[in-house]
Amino acid sequence: MKDISRNLTMLCDFYELTMANGYFKTGLTDRIVYFDVFYRSNPDNGGYAVVAGLEQIVEYIQALHFDEDDITYLRSKKLFDEAFLDYLRNFRFTGDIWAVPEGTYVFPGEPLMIVRAPAIQAQFIETYVLMVINHESLIATKASRLTRAAKGRAVSEFGSRRAQGADAAMLGARAAYIGGVNNTACTISDELYGVPASGTMAHSWVQMFDDELTAFRNYCTIYPHNSTLLIDTYNVLESGLPNAIRAFDEILKPQGITKCAVRIDSGDIAYLTKKIRRMLDEAGWYDCKIVVSNSLDEYIIRELIRQGTEVDAFGVGERLITAKSDPVFGGVYKLCAIEREDGTIQPKIKISENVGKITTPHFKKVYRLRGRDTGKAEADLICLHDEVIDDTKPLEIFDPQNTWKRKTLTNFTATELLVPIFKNGELVYDLPSLEEIRRHCQEEREGMWEEVRRFTNPHNYYVDLSQKLWDIKHALLNRRGG
Amino acid sequence: MKDISRNLTMLCDFYELTMANGYFKTGLTDRIVYFDVFYRSNPDNGGYAVVAGLEQIVEYIQALHFDEDDITYLRSKKLFDEAFLDYLRNFRFTGDIWAVPEGTYVFPGEPLMIVRAPAIQAQFIETYVLMVINHESLIATKASRLTRAAKGRAVSEFGSRRAQGADAAMLGARAAYIGGVNNTACTISDELYGVPASGTMAHSWVQMFDDELTAFRNYCTIYPHNSTLLIDTYNVLESGLPNAIRAFDEILKPQGITKCAVRIDSGDIAYLTKKIRRMLDEAGWYDCKIVVSNSLDEYIIRELIRQGTEVDAFGVGERLITAKSDPVFGGVYKLCAIEREDGTIQPKIKISENVGKITTPHFKKVYRLRGRDTGKAEADLICLHDEVIDDTKPLEIFDPQNTWKRKTLTNFTATELLVPIFKNGELVYDLPSLEEIRRHCQEEREGMWEEVRRFTNPHNYYVDLSQKLWDIKHALLNRRGG
Repeated sequence: MKDISRNLTMLCDFYELTMANGYFKTGLTDRIVYFDVFYRSNPDNGGYAVVAGLEQIVEYIQALHFDEDDITYLRSKKLFDEAFLDYLRNFRFTGDIWAVPEGTYVFPGEPLMIVRAPAIQAQFIETYVLMVINHESLIATKASRLTRAAKGRAVSEFGSRRAQGADAAMLGARAAYIGGVNNTACTISDELYGVPASGTMAHSWVQMFDDELTAFRNYCTIYPHNSTLLIDTYNVLESGLPNAIRAFDEILKPQGITKCAVRIDSGDIAYLTKKIRRMLDEAGWYDCKIVVSNSLDEYIIRELIRQGTEVDAFGVGERLITAKSDPVFGGVYKLCAIEREDGTIQPKIKISENVGKITTPHFKKVYRLRGRDTGKAEADLICLHDEVIDDTKPLEIFDPQNTWKRKTLTNFTATELLVPIFKNGELVYDLPSLEEIRRHCQEEREGMWEEVRRFTNPHNYYVDLSQKLWDIKHALLNRRGG
Repeated sequence: MKDISRNLTMLCDFYELTMANGYFKTGLTDRIVYFDVFYRSNPDNGGYAVVAGLEQIVEYIQALHFDEDDITYLRSKKLFDEAFLDYLRNFRFTGDIWAVPEGTYVFPGEPLMIVRAPAIQAQFIETYVLMVINHESLIATKASRLTRAAKGRAVSEFGSRRAQGADAAMLGARAAYIGGVNNTACTISDELYGVPASGTMAHSWVQMFDDELTAFRNYCTIYPHNSTLLIDTYNVLESGLPNAIRAFDEILKPQGITKCAVRIDSGDIAYLTKKIRRMLDEAGWYDCKIVVSNSLDEYIIRELIRQGTEVDAFGVGERLITAKSDPVFGGVYKLCAIEREDGTIQPKIKISENVGKITTPHFKKVYRLRGRDTGKAEADLICLHDEVIDDTKPLEIFDPQNTWKRKTLTNFTATELLVPIFKNGELVYDLPSLEEIRRHCQEEREGMWEEVRRFTNPHNYYVDLSQKLWDIKHALLNRRGG
């Protein structure tokens, strides 16, 4: 198995290190603290997000260590205690992590990951953990939106050349597959992660030969069972498609092959594809698929389908791999509690002039409440870590902003969203395969009301606080954080 | 020196491999071809771009090879000839590459890189080369815009946690430094590339102690010469700033230290910074800098300065590291010529229903024409590879779209933009240091008219074709590419 892992321990904001040295010098090295990862709003004003990246975080945590090169570099900054640098030599993660499994639908304000660890460790992993969750959740969410827009038609990830660096290409393809795309053009994502890779030809193939027909004949001869011909190098309807049909007739038909495809990467897609379909059908190539690409996103795909475009598969490039319309998933990493020396938990809150930046304090857990008959998710409930929801009894939930809005749930199931990943630094989680993650994401989609998934004015899914947690948060707010 | 390089040969679109196998089987393996890298429009409707990424491309080209794991994977796809897979075992890049040096200002339509190599090799590197140039040029260009908006104030790159993967964080910081930012929060970019990294504290530092004043006192005690205090954990004007001043007074003043800083990451920046400046000055902390962050970009920075904000340094996160307002640099890689068996060059064109997608054929070079007195760039001229511009004589240039728009240049210098990087697969280029690249970018900025650099309706910089090249392009267009 190919391994391209790197030690990226030093991929951290520099302040993680100045704070670490500071905790070291103020006796807080081993003080147990709790951090939450959560995000504040859904990408593209959507109704949900799909979380991804846990596997990469597990790899990072397991590999975490400082090389001598790193220590030498840090010493050169003339900011760090020699005793601290020595401490870094044996630095490992020894704490606990809970996380929402990859492929799960998640909502603003709820913890996607909880870290309980000695202060320096818990603080240190902030940058990398956020980077991974933010990147992969962004792309998985975008892919989920794209596949919804495509209404059962295939969607291919084509964006490596426009990705923001190598990891964006490789892991972006992985996240896109979790979110629902069917395959990728990125070869290494197939080799490393098992995202099915495919591809056929660029315009340069067509230009490399003396004429288009020769290029098509050669391709069909070499790949009779994988003949997707790119027909827009010169003129789609006058040259590309007639030449493609001729090559299919000459080379595929005698072999009894009926499956093939044509692709266009420019022009008026709705208009051209209808013409192409008619010409293909008239020529008897009923099983020839039509693949389109060229700056597609979920809005354009939805509009093309509304216009009756004859497309079997969409290739989506830059607008998926960068999530172009909203390219940032704003996950944050916030301190929510500190353990006192007697082991009791002191909740912590961050207050802000921006109300949206106020955090929910304490060591928590999250239940997803589903209708027992419908199987659909009705609300998520954030509780204290030691609260237990009894789903055999009615449960009153309320809107944490407008506390008079109350609702009593009956006939529901309550399932915890976060599962244990690390315990005392040991991995306690069986990492699912990529296919299992992708299937989980499809099941999650089935478990959501359509109203949560729509693009425009989606239903605002409830993420509520338990009464106990609400009380603690508001007591801290009234004391202004003190 | 720390080395985290990986073999990313397999980071290619799958069609590079199906085409490679196809060229192999049609006898085109060693046919010499020419590809151009160019882009079609400037990010953010700006007047220019800053090209970056060449160093990473050099590393990629030098490392290019297929492992046995890769061959095994490719065999499993049941598409490739065994003779082709065997050929891949000894695959190396043996061609020529010319490129515009990193940090250079560039314009739509002109080649940023020219690859002359045997067909399979030249085709194969497409995906990775584009990915690197697209990513790093995107961020270098954004950074250039941000530093222009900041009008001499410092700009720090803070975005790792929102970067689209590890390379986006690490190389994004490098590209941002080329484009003009002063430093980064990303530690590993300092260690690996020498981008100065710095950082102080997060809100969690403040929350970790019993109260804000204790947190500040501790920080100033540990880092008296690096005290940037984050003052918005609770309330900026009522708590954060008074506590910061008290900590400065108690701990820095007795040591005779006058340099320090406060940072805010929320709230009304223009309003708060004016209040903060006044309170700091009243307390005698004239040399205390004010650092701000929170969803900044070049437009907000420009507006804050217009409003008289009292900011010494801007920390820019997600909107730089993802180039959020326009997160795709649309570089493309197009076949422009093929060598015949007799060594003559056959120009190739790609025609498209989208006129903007039509390419400029042939093996080319680019001159930058500068006024001899002003030192300012007036136009770029794309010529055939063997044309020579004599800058001691008047030169008539013309708009390739509106050929009646003509202008005669006198008293100018003509400098070639592209320099040789690889010759017969050997590196022939002395890679400049990062500081040299950054300085080059600053000199480039000085050599551009202000009108080209402005944000709104920038002057459209001329990228013209020589008469000979224009004639060849239009002859091919009239023959519809034939």
